[in-house]
Amino acid sequence: MTTESFENLRLELRRGCLVLAVLAALRTEQYGYTLRKTLGDHGLAIDESTLYPLLRRLESQGLLQSQWREEDKRNKRFYVVTQEGALILRQLLTEWQEIDASLHAVLKEDSHGTS
Amino acid sequence: MTTESFENLRLELRRGCLVLAVLAALRTEQYGYTLRKTLGDHGLAIDESTLYPLLRRLESQGLLQSQWREEDKRNKRFYVVTQEGALILRQLLTEWQEIDASLHAVLKEDSHGTS
Repeated sequence: MTTESFENLRLELRRGCLVLAVLAALRTEQYGYTLRKTLGDHGLAIDESTLYPLLRRLESQGLLQSQWREEDKRNKRFYVVTQEGALILRQLLTEWQEIDASLHAVLKEDSHGTS
Repeated sequence: MTTESFENLRLELRRGCLVLAVLAALRTEQYGYTLRKTLGDHGLAIDESTLYPLLRRLESQGLLQSQWREEDKRNKRFYVVTQEGALILRQLLTEWQEIDASLHAVLKEDSHGTS
């Protein structure tokens, strides 16, 4: 297997959890730059070309809302989760915990164990 | 947000971890039916139309090997991880633990916390 193939598997694994991380980080209002920094600081580096389309998608789904505002003499677009976004975050977190538990259960099996 | 949109987010979250679950389950040789049953029994139900292309992809990447064999008078294709597949599984598990830790760190923040 090439390094590139492994990198693809790694990215595939991260992709699904990015929505969760973005919604979690945006329980506090942030604009793009600080959001990327928050995620990056926690080991979830994300390209601008991935983040901004994701933010637009989540806003169009009603999970985020945004607002242009001036800060430090620059116009910035601030994002925050909606009430529905907060609800979906909780549901996805439950889902995540279930997946994690499922994975650990599969890992614990040394044989099929199914009858 | 529609039920369908939530379902898409849920599936997106599961998709990334399926490779992990499949490699983990195939540390023990299995054929398609018992593999699906193992995953399903652990809460990771997967369609045949998703599983078989995934198995072919992982085999072409050298992470799985397969063999046709007769069992109960029927020809079945048995899959098992290769040495490289076992190595990649360990690396992806490390990755998964890191993502989990990152997500928990983001969840613990009540404010940006970045300077």
